[in-house]
Amino acid sequence: MDLPAVAPLADQALAARLRHRVDHLTKPLGALGQLEALAVQLGLILEQDHGLADALHTPQMVVFAADHGLAAEGVSAYPQAVTAQMVMNMASGGAAINVLARQHGFALTLVDAGVAADLSALPIRHHKVAPGTASALQGPAMTRAQAEQALRAGMDVVRALPGRVLALGEMGIGNTSSAALLLAALCGVEVADACGRGTGLDDAQLTHKREVLQRVAQRHAGLTEPLDVLATVGGFEIAMMAGALLQGASERRVLLVDGFIAGAAALVARALCPAVSGYLVFCHRSHESGHRLMLQHLLQRDAVLPSAPLLDLDLRLGEGSGALLAWPLVLSAARLFDGMASFESAQISTAINAAV
Amino acid sequence: MDLPAVAPLADQALAARLRHRVDHLTKPLGALGQLEALAVQLGLILEQDHGLADALHTPQMVVFAADHGLAAEGVSAYPQAVTAQMVMNMASGGAAINVLARQHGFALTLVDAGVAADLSALPIRHHKVAPGTASALQGPAMTRAQAEQALRAGMDVVRALPGRVLALGEMGIGNTSSAALLLAALCGVEVADACGRGTGLDDAQLTHKREVLQRVAQRHAGLTEPLDVLATVGGFEIAMMAGALLQGASERRVLLVDGFIAGAAALVARALCPAVSGYLVFCHRSHESGHRLMLQHLLQRDAVLPSAPLLDLDLRLGEGSGALLAWPLVLSAARLFDGMASFESAQISTAINAAV
Repeated sequence: MDLPAVAPLADQALAARLRHRVDHLTKPLGALGQLEALAVQLGLILEQDHGLADALHTPQMVVFAADHGLAAEGVSAYPQAVTAQMVMNMASGGAAINVLARQHGFALTLVDAGVAADLSALPIRHHKVAPGTASALQGPAMTRAQAEQALRAGMDVVRALPGRVLALGEMGIGNTSSAALLLAALCGVEVADACGRGTGLDDAQLTHKREVLQRVAQRHAGLTEPLDVLATVGGFEIAMMAGALLQGASERRVLLVDGFIAGAAALVARALCPAVSGYLVFCHRSHESGHRLMLQHLLQRDAVLPSAPLLDLDLRLGEGSGALLAWPLVLSAARLFDGMASFESAQISTAINAAV
Repeated sequence: MDLPAVAPLADQALAARLRHRVDHLTKPLGALGQLEALAVQLGLILEQDHGLADALHTPQMVVFAADHGLAAEGVSAYPQAVTAQMVMNMASGGAAINVLARQHGFALTLVDAGVAADLSALPIRHHKVAPGTASALQGPAMTRAQAEQALRAGMDVVRALPGRVLALGEMGIGNTSSAALLLAALCGVEVADACGRGTGLDDAQLTHKREVLQRVAQRHAGLTEPLDVLATVGGFEIAMMAGALLQGASERRVLLVDGFIAGAAALVARALCPAVSGYLVFCHRSHESGHRLMLQHLLQRDAVLPSAPLLDLDLRLGEGSGALLAWPLVLSAARLFDGMASFESAQISTAINAAV
């Protein structure tokens, strides 16, 4: 299928200008820690060396919801019906993501990517590929055509939204299983290490989940082509998020990546188009055990972009909540870059200038 | 001296009501991680079980600036003149703390606690105890009377401010040395472990700083009474912050504690009045090496209050910047507590209710 073209963040001259300004603000060298690399990343994405915060208007939050055939195998602490119930909760404004979107002025778009219930009466975006995926224990979770349909839907949703800031979230009982299988297949991580407690499994339930996921992985061993992997063990919401990330990066949007499920979508998007990586802002390290491993694969190893997620608060809620909790830090990085005096402008002598 | 009375956070019935609500919001149990304990702490401080966010209006940021006699011993990467220059930068709106105060709607109060320069023309609060402390290598940094004067000034500044949210910051070349000495004296930490690179010392400079601080510690060995310790190795800005924390806690304000220097003030305040602890929100873990140790001593070991700082971004800027960067998370904890639906109100069945 045709994927949108994504430009790598390759403007070395701009990177040098951004770094120069960061290093001459009225603070000790490096004193803003991770926010310094973040400011540089924002400038590179936006292709600007000033006025970064002004470019971050009209931020968008998109939550994709879908069900998973694997939920029938007892891999979640919750019954599948909770997916639809939580979408209704979001549609009526009562979920965590609603509260956070209101706090930070994000427009919230809800998308039925494939919930196993009739949500046609809800005032949300309807892109239902099917009422839940098939069980990956029995065969592929979706057909290749369904995977492509979902990717395209994700692109379409983003294409219609304004602004340069895109946060993605999800709701889908069973989707930590799908994310773990994607992590295992795309990064060579052991299934047992990728698999965590999700919404709160006890030890016995976790053991069962591991066994189910290992059987799924054995059944589909050897897959490496990203679209095949996505179709076989992915979910509709994850596929749409991957499409949304590809489209967002192609439009040079700042992409706020939430936790384990959004990270799995980022793995898929990056496998399809490596240049996406530069546009990803990793918002938090979640409590889900596989997320630490996932971030090791996702985080950049170059010297320019941030080397750690912004928050580490033991969150494991999903919905995009971690992305919006981290958002003020992204805005702070931009505002500090824009608004602080330089040593020169503030007429502060000193030591530090000699050091730069 | 008379210290304000601080009530411990001892209302177990309120704590139970707060925890019950947190556990019945539409999310998996514990899924908001550290923000859940934070919401409970806010409720206990404010003595409310609803409407927490509304109580957090008119937030205040107070920055105390002072100089340190030890700066003459070459313990900082910067010359002492930078303290006054940075206060002028703050007074004209160009420092990091100005940018963050504007972003988050904090009123910013600047206080000359003891800068070694004439700042009388600046539109700031003037509580200069002296133009810098004496060198703790030669004798006590301040007299007992000066320490008490500084504590009282900190109380007076807070008493005059509105609202229930108080963030404290500082500016003072050399003050990581004072903070390290306080950590060592009040917590029994080795000076070498408490001492870090501050604003950016290289290896040789760090070795020199360690030697200086060890000589100071040897000279004043055996001090344990908090006011004596404060007078001997403290700083005027640290003493005023300690007074501000005591006053703030006595008025049941939410106290946002920044990094290593503010943490040292918290150690002093807690030593003077242990009940202060419950009112402290630890905003970040700084890059300064001794801060990790300091937080181990400061963080609560009970099951109710947060067990980790909110951010860990390798910050080492001071000014209160880490406190304001973390502020949106505090507000999010309150808003999520106030604004999320409960499972009952959202008519979501399920597993989780059985588990609670």
